[in-house]
Amino acid sequence: MDQLLRAGADVRLADLDTRATPGFDGDKAAGEAALAAGADELGALQEKLFAASRAGDERRILLVLQAMDTAGKGGILRHVVGAVDPQGVALAAFKKPTPEELAEHFLARIERRLPGPGMIGVFDRSHYEDVLIARVRELAPADEIERRYGEIRDFERRLVDDGTRVIKVMLHISPDEQKERLQERLDRADKHWKYNPGDVDERMLWPTYMEAYERAIAETDADHAPWFVVPADRKWFARLAVQHLLLRELRALDPQWPAADFDVDVEHERLAGS
Amino acid sequence: MDQLLRAGADVRLADLDTRATPGFDGDKAAGEAALAAGADELGALQEKLFAASRAGDERRILLVLQAMDTAGKGGILRHVVGAVDPQGVALAAFKKPTPEELAEHFLARIERRLPGPGMIGVFDRSHYEDVLIARVRELAPADEIERRYGEIRDFERRLVDDGTRVIKVMLHISPDEQKERLQERLDRADKHWKYNPGDVDERMLWPTYMEAYERAIAETDADHAPWFVVPADRKWFARLAVQHLLLRELRALDPQWPAADFDVDVEHERLAGS
Repeated sequence: MDQLLRAGADVRLADLDTRATPGFDGDKAAGEAALAAGADELGALQEKLFAASRAGDERRILLVLQAMDTAGKGGILRHVVGAVDPQGVALAAFKKPTPEELAEHFLARIERRLPGPGMIGVFDRSHYEDVLIARVRELAPADEIERRYGEIRDFERRLVDDGTRVIKVMLHISPDEQKERLQERLDRADKHWKYNPGDVDERMLWPTYMEAYERAIAETDADHAPWFVVPADRKWFARLAVQHLLLRELRALDPQWPAADFDVDVEHERLAGS
Repeated sequence: MDQLLRAGADVRLADLDTRATPGFDGDKAAGEAALAAGADELGALQEKLFAASRAGDERRILLVLQAMDTAGKGGILRHVVGAVDPQGVALAAFKKPTPEELAEHFLARIERRLPGPGMIGVFDRSHYEDVLIARVRELAPADEIERRYGEIRDFERRLVDDGTRVIKVMLHISPDEQKERLQERLDRADKHWKYNPGDVDERMLWPTYMEAYERAIAETDADHAPWFVVPADRKWFARLAVQHLLLRELRALDPQWPAADFDVDVEHERLAGS
């Protein structure tokens, strides 16, 4: 599945089918069953990674989630990330920068929220906002935005060198699917709080956003920090796909229970005498 | 159940049955079924509290977990807190203070991890370490520790005034139960990473710790920031009890879906035209 989702320098988002389920030929029920089955393995692997970190293993995961509004980031957090022990997850949601954050380097607030060893870090939006909305809305000078691609490449290279496996996901929905989801938020009083009139303003700029995504992906996709474009019109598939990407990294890390750094026999005796 | 668990100034921990299940007359299977049923309500109430916060509701929850080693804090985090959407949980684990933390006021690191509006904050250990292990191990001068009780009272009063519901829980196990649980960590290679020889050192000071807990509870229990002593030899009961305490607070808060702060008809038209 992962090779089918991998996006490279030549990605053309408009050509990708947002209702597709690449690499999975089951239906929604099968997808949900697979998700439930994967949750246990994900939790078990994370616990092992965490255990290894207690003995000095520096490795960790960073999942970066980017998407247009309503694409399903929240559902990924709830249903995929939420299946992991909260002690093993470091979740950071990056909103519109505060005045203090705007006064510092755009990566500074990102640095402060990086996951520690043994953790699965998850970014709900990220430093990519600084080359996405920042580009579309011209929130920074053009040459500054151009410079940021290189800074992001260097930053992610350093993360990887320090033991972080970086997985970057764009949840890809169609404008029609977004319209339906926004419609539902308007139709239901218990969903009004999720609706923001500004979302329609951003929606009007869809093609410009897609260009900004394509450019960001082309500039920053790398084998050590790959981009995946996950078709997200079917929520169940997007969740399964992101879980799969996490599982794949964790299996590759293959964490091991650390050996005791104490004398087990001695401790048995001490404990018995206590 | 909550009144049965409430601890006051006269709490005598040695007199409390750590295997009891006060307020619940079912067995383990019934307890686990009740926990699963409560998880949905907990998640739904938290989502509503979060939604309300988007419209300016400042209210939030802070659950403080304290316990001797192996008492089951991790299981509470995994099985009770883990059932809530991770976007609605702010979990902070307080370890042995760093040199930087020791150089500042003991409440400074706590302040930095307080939950925002709409969140369920959970402290895995807390400022109470500064009157528990600090007292037992004489990590600060005696008069300084005496002063801290009052500072904690003032601190928690302020939290409550700012809209935080404070729930303080001591998971209460027996020394025998702890011995069994430490034994299991020694017996299983996949549990060795959870074993710390220092735990046996602390175990030897059990009565002194119980005195420190009794004193801390007596000094800081208040109707606005109550202490609950939860019998924890039966893990399933402790989880159910803590879930119950959270549910009780959330039901009392009775959060409401916020009204739309936009014109729904206008937005329907804008969306249709986009």
